Amino acid sequence: MAKNDSERPVVGVDLGGTKVLAGVVAPNGKILGTAKRATKSEVGVEAVIERIAKTTREAVKAAGLELSDVAGICSGAPGILNPTTGMVRYAPNMAGWEDIPFARMLGDALGGVPAFIENDVNLGTLGEHVLGAGVGYRDVVGLFVGTGIGGGLILDGELWQGSHKTAAEIGHMIVMADGPVCGCGSRGCAEALASRTAIERDIRAGIKAGRESLVAELLAKDERARLTSGILAEAFAKHDPLVTEVLGRAQFYLGVLIASVINFIDPELIILGGGVVEALGDEFLVPIRRVAQQYPINKRDARTIPIVSATLGDNAALLGAAIYARRRLEQAEK
Amino acid sequence: MAKNDSERPVVGVDLGGTKVLAGVVAPNGKILGTAKRATKSEVGVEAVIERIAKTTREAVKAAGLELSDVAGICSGAPGILNPTTGMVRYAPNMAGWEDIPFARMLGDALGGVPAFIENDVNLGTLGEHVLGAGVGYRDVVGLFVGTGIGGGLILDGELWQGSHKTAAEIGHMIVMADGPVCGCGSRGCAEALASRTAIERDIRAGIKAGRESLVAELLAKDERARLTSGILAEAFAKHDPLVTEVLGRAQFYLGVLIASVINFIDPELIILGGGVVEALGDEFLVPIRRVAQQYPINKRDARTIPIVSATLGDNAALLGAAIYARRRLEQAEK
Repeated sequence: MAKNDSERPVVGVDLGGTKVLAGVVAPNGKILGTAKRATKSEVGVEAVIERIAKTTREAVKAAGLELSDVAGICSGAPGILNPTTGMVRYAPNMAGWEDIPFARMLGDALGGVPAFIENDVNLGTLGEHVLGAGVGYRDVVGLFVGTGIGGGLILDGELWQGSHKTAAEIGHMIVMADGPVCGCGSRGCAEALASRTAIERDIRAGIKAGRESLVAELLAKDERARLTSGILAEAFAKHDPLVTEVLGRAQFYLGVLIASVINFIDPELIILGGGVVEALGDEFLVPIRRVAQQYPINKRDARTIPIVSATLGDNAALLGAAIYARRRLEQAEK
Repeated sequence: MAKNDSERPVVGVDLGGTKVLAGVVAPNGKILGTAKRATKSEVGVEAVIERIAKTTREAVKAAGLELSDVAGICSGAPGILNPTTGMVRYAPNMAGWEDIPFARMLGDALGGVPAFIENDVNLGTLGEHVLGAGVGYRDVVGLFVGTGIGGGLILDGELWQGSHKTAAEIGHMIVMADGPVCGCGSRGCAEALASRTAIERDIRAGIKAGRESLVAELLAKDERARLTSGILAEAFAKHDPLVTEVLGRAQFYLGVLIASVINFIDPELIILGGGVVEALGDEFLVPIRRVAQQYPINKRDARTIPIVSATLGDNAALLGAAIYARRRLEQAEK
């Protein structure tokens, strides 16, 4: 870091499919100002980067600062990327995102601010590790259940990125060989069994087959309405039989997935977050814990591994991005 | 290490369910002398340790050395253990092995030689990493398919032991939720689907149901004979339909397991070893590679991750034990 950089704020950006959230973060982790806008990823990579830059400038202004006060920035980025080079290599869900020098383009759009990128779920896990549910632990697995299922892995206190920078794709670990087709082209991935998308698929199939459900009434007003985490939570709280059954299967598969993760990496702590977990609350975690803590081979220790809810909510990735930017700036200084 | 220890040989011991294999290993990895005998684990922990000590003395003699020439020893040990303290905490398959100070007892039985223990599959992976198929790689997964399925994990060039020292239990990752019951008490673990035990279960079920198979003839002489890897290899080479089908399923599940491992830890190299893999040869690996390299989410890189056979055969764990002993002695010196 340049002189005094360790005392200067950095910017963290949560780049999601629907919204960009930028925050200016002080060295102590305090958020000094934020701004957000729609991502509009369909407009293409240059326009998205321009939108991130604009949102960043607004966040800096909201913090009462100038861009020159900021030591660096890190943004989440989609697809298969390389945080070391700042390149988005390819993005299965984004046509044309191929070998994009995302970090350099973002830095250029902000007049040369040092810029970094990482996978958004890795950043969320890092945020929770340093400032949220994972404080005080060194080996942490983060699992975020929303539209998809993402994962992050902290080993010895650092993000484990893997040999090709694509580690911790926990949602694509296969828990049911020959199970339902997944968006990634495999079958039986956790994401194809326990994400909100998978849960919605199964609930809609039940309704279509004539099963009674509160969800049918809640969706009746608009056939094409999304089955949001909020609707799920309402039906879950009211013990709707169809929703309880489908969520029960998702809970079982999440428990099985976590048992595999424990058997493989033997962490100190598992953090569960994401829209589904946040909406359904701690009651949703109880059966997950039961399976995850009983299935591993080292049953005595598995019982003692805490499986807890994330605590930073929507700010996890933003804060993780700020932490990652700071670490990269410190490394560059060495 | 004590003065000149880095130039002295160490002893590595492969402690299996059926045999003890001890080897004296020079600093350059050369095996100077070996000895082996039956384990007889049913005689209890003290007698087993006595048998290891006796085998070690014979190996030292075979190397033309005295015990005082040896800088240290490491032995594989069964069950859930702690390599740092040298304790076997508990062993699900060994009644009465509960809080056993295995390393200290072994050191005492050898007149005070510094003694260490580790999980045998971790040691096999370390051996292959340093002296076998994994030379030149830093992030390596070892998978050993025999009576059971064991795994080992090298991250940044070091054994990853996990927070409770029970990482890399890859054979107990669940690839088919609600699949066949596993010895560990879960269902659908890779070991319950693709170990020699699982393969034998399925082939015997086929024969019992009247399916034709060369194996039926090979086993006809002795009903209680074990379906060895050698018999499997013979039937596989002759394209026996039942064996080909059952092995095909095992290959698929092993491919799925490796895809999950790649998605989670993103290694540089996968090494496959163990009795089944050794007996069936490289032809067995071809369909495993096909699944393992196509199912991960980062398909471009997954295709480039080598999935190779182990090269050290029966010496992998012994050599890994020697390497581990040497590293621990070096750490103690610091």
